[in-house]
Amino acid sequence: MRMPTREGVIEAAEKVAAILPPTPLLPVRIGNTRCWVKAETLQPVGAFKIRGAWHRLSALSEEEKARGVVAVSSGNHAQGVAWAAARLGIKAAIVMPRDAPRVKLQATHALGAEIVLYERPGEDRDEVAARLIAERGGTLVHAFGDPWVIEGQGSAGIEITQQLGRQPSQILACCGGGGLAAGLALACPDSAIVPVEPEGWDMVGQAMAAGEIVQVADDAPKTICDALQPPATKPVNLSILKDRAEPGVTVDDDEVRAAQRFAFSNLHLVVEPGGAAALAAALAGKVPLDADTVIMLTGGNTDAESFAAMLASTG
Amino acid sequence: MRMPTREGVIEAAEKVAAILPPTPLLPVRIGNTRCWVKAETLQPVGAFKIRGAWHRLSALSEEEKARGVVAVSSGNHAQGVAWAAARLGIKAAIVMPRDAPRVKLQATHALGAEIVLYERPGEDRDEVAARLIAERGGTLVHAFGDPWVIEGQGSAGIEITQQLGRQPSQILACCGGGGLAAGLALACPDSAIVPVEPEGWDMVGQAMAAGEIVQVADDAPKTICDALQPPATKPVNLSILKDRAEPGVTVDDDEVRAAQRFAFSNLHLVVEPGGAAALAAALAGKVPLDADTVIMLTGGNTDAESFAAMLASTG
Repeated sequence: MRMPTREGVIEAAEKVAAILPPTPLLPVRIGNTRCWVKAETLQPVGAFKIRGAWHRLSALSEEEKARGVVAVSSGNHAQGVAWAAARLGIKAAIVMPRDAPRVKLQATHALGAEIVLYERPGEDRDEVAARLIAERGGTLVHAFGDPWVIEGQGSAGIEITQQLGRQPSQILACCGGGGLAAGLALACPDSAIVPVEPEGWDMVGQAMAAGEIVQVADDAPKTICDALQPPATKPVNLSILKDRAEPGVTVDDDEVRAAQRFAFSNLHLVVEPGGAAALAAALAGKVPLDADTVIMLTGGNTDAESFAAMLASTG
Repeated sequence: MRMPTREGVIEAAEKVAAILPPTPLLPVRIGNTRCWVKAETLQPVGAFKIRGAWHRLSALSEEEKARGVVAVSSGNHAQGVAWAAARLGIKAAIVMPRDAPRVKLQATHALGAEIVLYERPGEDRDEVAARLIAERGGTLVHAFGDPWVIEGQGSAGIEITQQLGRQPSQILACCGGGGLAAGLALACPDSAIVPVEPEGWDMVGQAMAAGEIVQVADDAPKTICDALQPPATKPVNLSILKDRAEPGVTVDDDEVRAAQRFAFSNLHLVVEPGGAAALAAALAGKVPLDADTVIMLTGGNTDAESFAAMLASTG
């Protein structure tokens, strides 16, 4: 597999800018610090995943496009791939967990993709996807362990640099498998990259600490961050992040809900649990902030019922 | 009183652009039409009112600044004036209804303004403000019947024109006293301006139909649109709108809640009832839409309890 490059990120940023307006970089005050949030929740599919999906699918050959794509996702990558596939006239099959939020299943279906459900935990989602490709053919679009996907997600870092007029001092990134974090590391070589993961699901942080891929524990705790539950990171992500990222930070469900409430009240943005992880770390004081800090709000796809319950909760 | 002018709107747009990044113009699909929403909910005070307040307060003489300002508002103009006053070091007293949403009272207080409460209905808010000015001095910053405020709100129309690359075919504007609608009419002479008001509180629509100011009925129905309950429009607004605006459109509470839910699910934006009125008219099919239609989302300041109840409602 080719390695993703900064040149690839810059190319991805040009391709993304040609079809999607930049998402706003909004000022935010956290404690006594004024810094920035990048509202990727305002992408057409409600998440940054549209970037990597567009960069990958638009780079397929005509022959590959004709055979279609297969992706694995709890819902945001699913919508990104479905959106890009619909726009390019490509057939897409998405392997999704049966317990994915209903809005994510519905939105992926509405974008015209075929959904193949699997059980989480129990079935290995990568095996389900591999079986599908063996049966039908098609190109796998991995949610984070793919060079185009990483470059595509990194386009957010180029956009931030243009909006801020300089590279940020640091970027706090909600982190599942490490696709966004790796892309931002390539995009912004002068910025510290801080991956923020749910407690017990910090497979990027643990891999960076161990120097090798670590699988999630069988008894990993439940988390409300449905978008940040990869079984492990991938070598391509680890190879980029091990030299570039800060030690990982983890957040718990109460911290995530507090961040969702903060975004509701102070920013008037709907942020899903996994999309609020980086903000949660900032609000909980787990990362020192400065005026050039950028906090990624990565997704906003959440059920009305869950959101109403979160607003009513105090923890 | 001087009349607001298009030149004044352009000057306001330059002043606003110097301190506030443009709010995003986001694509939205309504039925089979792709058009645009202008997300003024993402202004620092969560509403477009920051525009007019900034244009007005920054135009005060040093002597006027020293005497302070007085405003009347159910909460969004209050925050706009308080924000601008804090930034310019001006003392601000805001006359607010006792039943204003708690978040609006709290946010206005947090911005450092003095709050003077009145009872709605019962007390005449303009009289409370006039009494305050008679006692203490200071400049009245009217929420909509002020030339600077109208020009300032119109700066949104200049921004939209820059973002769209042309003037919109039409702008659907949530409408209270008609400050925004009048400003947009000046900003975009080639665009149709459609004021959207709550049922029974269409004091701009009624004034345009009658050709004169109409006071709200004593038995006006309740509305969830707390931001759109002026007792009447003002001559300056009517004089601009009577020749420029389309016949007014009204929306009911169920239509407004449906629009809030649509904004939650499809745009991932928190929109308050009054801020969703224009979107409600579009979703209810009350205004024919085209690809160059812009729908104003004017405010996002709403209590968590109200928002959760709205999400849970089906009407």
